[in-house]
Amino acid sequence: MNETKISDGTKFKIKGARFAAVSANIKYVNRLDLMVIYLETGSIITGVFTSSKTKAPSVLWSKKVTKKAFKDDKNPLAILVNSGNANAFTGKNGKKAIKKIVTKISTFLNISKKRVLMASTGVIGEFLPYKKIIEKIPELIKNLSENQIVNCANAIMTTDTYPKIRYKKFKLENKFVSVAGIAKGSGMIAPNMATMLAFIITDVKISYDILKKLTASLCDKTFNSITVDSDTSTSDMVLISATSKVEMKPIEKSSDNRILKFAKMLELIMKELALDIVKDGEGAKKLVEYQIVGATNDKSAKNIAFSIANSPLVKTAVAGEDPNWGRIIMAIGKSGEKIDQEKIKIFFGQYLITKNGKVYSEYDEEKTKNYMKKTELLVKVDLGIGKGSSTIWGCDLTKEYIDINADYRS
Amino acid sequence: MNETKISDGTKFKIKGARFAAVSANIKYVNRLDLMVIYLETGSIITGVFTSSKTKAPSVLWSKKVTKKAFKDDKNPLAILVNSGNANAFTGKNGKKAIKKIVTKISTFLNISKKRVLMASTGVIGEFLPYKKIIEKIPELIKNLSENQIVNCANAIMTTDTYPKIRYKKFKLENKFVSVAGIAKGSGMIAPNMATMLAFIITDVKISYDILKKLTASLCDKTFNSITVDSDTSTSDMVLISATSKVEMKPIEKSSDNRILKFAKMLELIMKELALDIVKDGEGAKKLVEYQIVGATNDKSAKNIAFSIANSPLVKTAVAGEDPNWGRIIMAIGKSGEKIDQEKIKIFFGQYLITKNGKVYSEYDEEKTKNYMKKTELLVKVDLGIGKGSSTIWGCDLTKEYIDINADYRS
Repeated sequence: MNETKISDGTKFKIKGARFAAVSANIKYVNRLDLMVIYLETGSIITGVFTSSKTKAPSVLWSKKVTKKAFKDDKNPLAILVNSGNANAFTGKNGKKAIKKIVTKISTFLNISKKRVLMASTGVIGEFLPYKKIIEKIPELIKNLSENQIVNCANAIMTTDTYPKIRYKKFKLENKFVSVAGIAKGSGMIAPNMATMLAFIITDVKISYDILKKLTASLCDKTFNSITVDSDTSTSDMVLISATSKVEMKPIEKSSDNRILKFAKMLELIMKELALDIVKDGEGAKKLVEYQIVGATNDKSAKNIAFSIANSPLVKTAVAGEDPNWGRIIMAIGKSGEKIDQEKIKIFFGQYLITKNGKVYSEYDEEKTKNYMKKTELLVKVDLGIGKGSSTIWGCDLTKEYIDINADYRS
Repeated sequence: MNETKISDGTKFKIKGARFAAVSANIKYVNRLDLMVIYLETGSIITGVFTSSKTKAPSVLWSKKVTKKAFKDDKNPLAILVNSGNANAFTGKNGKKAIKKIVTKISTFLNISKKRVLMASTGVIGEFLPYKKIIEKIPELIKNLSENQIVNCANAIMTTDTYPKIRYKKFKLENKFVSVAGIAKGSGMIAPNMATMLAFIITDVKISYDILKKLTASLCDKTFNSITVDSDTSTSDMVLISATSKVEMKPIEKSSDNRILKFAKMLELIMKELALDIVKDGEGAKKLVEYQIVGATNDKSAKNIAFSIANSPLVKTAVAGEDPNWGRIIMAIGKSGEKIDQEKIKIFFGQYLITKNGKVYSEYDEEKTKNYMKKTELLVKVDLGIGKGSSTIWGCDLTKEYIDINADYRS
């Protein structure tokens, strides 16, 4: 699913944020592969990180930084990201590389090391050529500009077929606030390149605690509700930062009624970026929204949703434009979650498929087949036994996925 | 992976067991699709069934029978199996179909209904044309012969490319005992056809309790240690029966030292059938044995093994003959199990790949690439933190899997 969203970076300004990207020749020559986001004094940052037990050192480092950021918001913040090498499972070399890079930025910018975050995406297990990165830091910093976010979106791509960038400007009471986000990801972990990364920046004035709470709950509904191939990267990372540069009364209390609108806009950006990733899923031709309702609770609904969305047989049926609802039944069954066969209603789009524990008496295969030809599909399952619900997004499994991933690394 | 193992059925005799198969035109015309195994008075039967929450009615029925069989071994036993239709998610019609079929066999053979088992494999959600089956029962029973097990193996095939049949004859002390087994399965659930089924018969004289215990523990090490596509059928079933027709002192005590040899032979048959299924996995070109050792416990080892074996990225790397060990690290990480990155040793065959949390200093990519060209591979992971271990078998993910499963049902 190709989408082109490259745009002029001048449209995506965030007060207090500057961007730069260069080519450091990490894996390929003359391709943007190193970027920095610089956030002025007073900025805060929170994050959500991979649940993998083989976390890359950049994940461990950045996680530590986001935990402490609220205690030290006097320094600027820098987020450095490279593509072409994940610096994952690289032993002591990996940690040393991060230390060297962070020290260089910290010295060069004269900021605390604890205000420098790092993310890496690319092949697992190869040593990061950190000297190439260190050499480029002066040039990178010199290039910093409020207009360069599009270059940053390009620099973090691996098997992505297009850069992913989203922006919204809206009013909170009488003040204009902006949110910009970039992301990369094309498999939960791509061929040799890895990882889903997203960086979101806003100029809103908000407390660390509230932003942290929003980050966790909104990630759950967006970036943690998508699947391309069920694989989890060693390096996934979503960072959300606020520069506080809008002149406004700070959002500090959870009763502040501006939170609702801000959260809504933030969720929209996160959801759009998340869907950009699924649409750009390796080999994906179709985007499927799975809506599960009527489950015993939300967690059960989400487990069932992922059991369906990750089933290779469901995904190949979607690729084949086959309304093969028996596979949905199979996937609900294998989830292990509580269900009552007699009460399951499956819908493809508006079409009811099952009722009373069997195929619906007025099920129309021809109409449903036609529906399956769309590139964006809705599969809804009403379990009819409770109030739990979950919506997630997945894609189909095509031969192109095999092509992309069975090629020998080169 | 094609293997031909069709053989003359006269070689596979089990005392007290007779077999027959006919064509009932359930889905296709003139293809064996209905079979029966008849076991004389005194036979016992145990089973292991799918963990799916959307179990087919035949699974629920047969499960009930195996629970009670030991209390009533005066009647003969009959196992009726059809392919071409799974009779799953068919509501009341499904239960009615089973009732009608079981009643017919029970009346015709003059045995208790509680001694008739049934299994079905094929498309989910379509009503079973049970009248076609009932009509054929007299012919089926008339055909019963001790030589017809090969026809039974053929009659249960769906997308299988060859029948799966294994046989062993061995001495327990001074008595010859035979074990025969047939199986089907080509995806955990195949395109529209479904299911893994296995039926094993022996003439050993053994108590129900001991056979039941063996069935559960050996299934765990064989049929429950394979994966083709991580999907679980609504209809999986393994039945193991003993006719007791060998004139021998019965095996009734768990201290009986004949159990060890019998269990070993039974496990061998079960493992061979299980591997036959993986080798015949939809689109599979390679069989991979995953040996996990040094885990905190066996359960953790098995979870890690399945996390690796089911990873689409690992499976496509195997298809591409790429020793992409970074994906093994990723899959270990996403399992959520306890590990220590520094202690993980990965071996492809005899080649050590990782040590001390990074790639092994003497890792030889060329040699490992050559190793990956084999059709049967060993991937061994030593986690180095405990005594837990598990061995499972999986296959690669190829474009043919997509071909087989993305085709519209017809």
